Amino acid sequence: MTQKLPADERRAALAELGERGWSEVEGRDAIEKTFRFRNFVEAFGFMARVALHAEKLDHHPEWRNVYRTVEVTLTTHDVDGLSPLDIRLAKRMDALAE
Amino acid sequence: MTQKLPADERRAALAELGERGWSEVEGRDAIEKTFRFRNFVEAFGFMARVALHAEKLDHHPEWRNVYRTVEVTLTTHDVDGLSPLDIRLAKRMDALAE
Repeated sequence: MTQKLPADERRAALAELGERGWSEVEGRDAIEKTFRFRNFVEAFGFMARVALHAEKLDHHPEWRNVYRTVEVTLTTHDVDGLSPLDIRLAKRMDALAE
Repeated sequence: MTQKLPADERRAALAELGERGWSEVEGRDAIEKTFRFRNFVEAFGFMARVALHAEKLDHHPEWRNVYRTVEVTLTTHDVDGLSPLDIRLAKRMDALAE
């Protein structure tokens, strides 16, 4: 079963993700990042790749797309906060955006 | 060139779209609608179909997806308000959501 991240793992993961543009959301146990692409085709191509992975993980982002930007928020509703699934999805999104 | 909707066309279009769940955005010359699907696969499938049409129209939605919901806002940045392109895209989205 998915559980909240233990404090030490959480600290380490957020430090690592922080170097790649992820930050904690104010007032919510969640992380966010804005991805920017060259155009809509690249932005939506990214979203399509992420969507397939998200469905396979059974863990989905909250995200907003305006033309070439994709604003992502990750949290785990089942545990009302960050879980290992969020860290995994965040890293996968970074890899898919490259 | 794209232009703002003339007042009479605008009124007629908004009345028609209003019956299908579109409403005007407060404080912005834009329209919005929340689409709900059975699950993420259906929600993202809808987004993928819309994305291809949007790119072809060269007119893109602002949209937010959380699992099975897709919140859409349409406006035309070039004219800083609603244009015929928004009406066209709104109708297409309704058709694609069916």
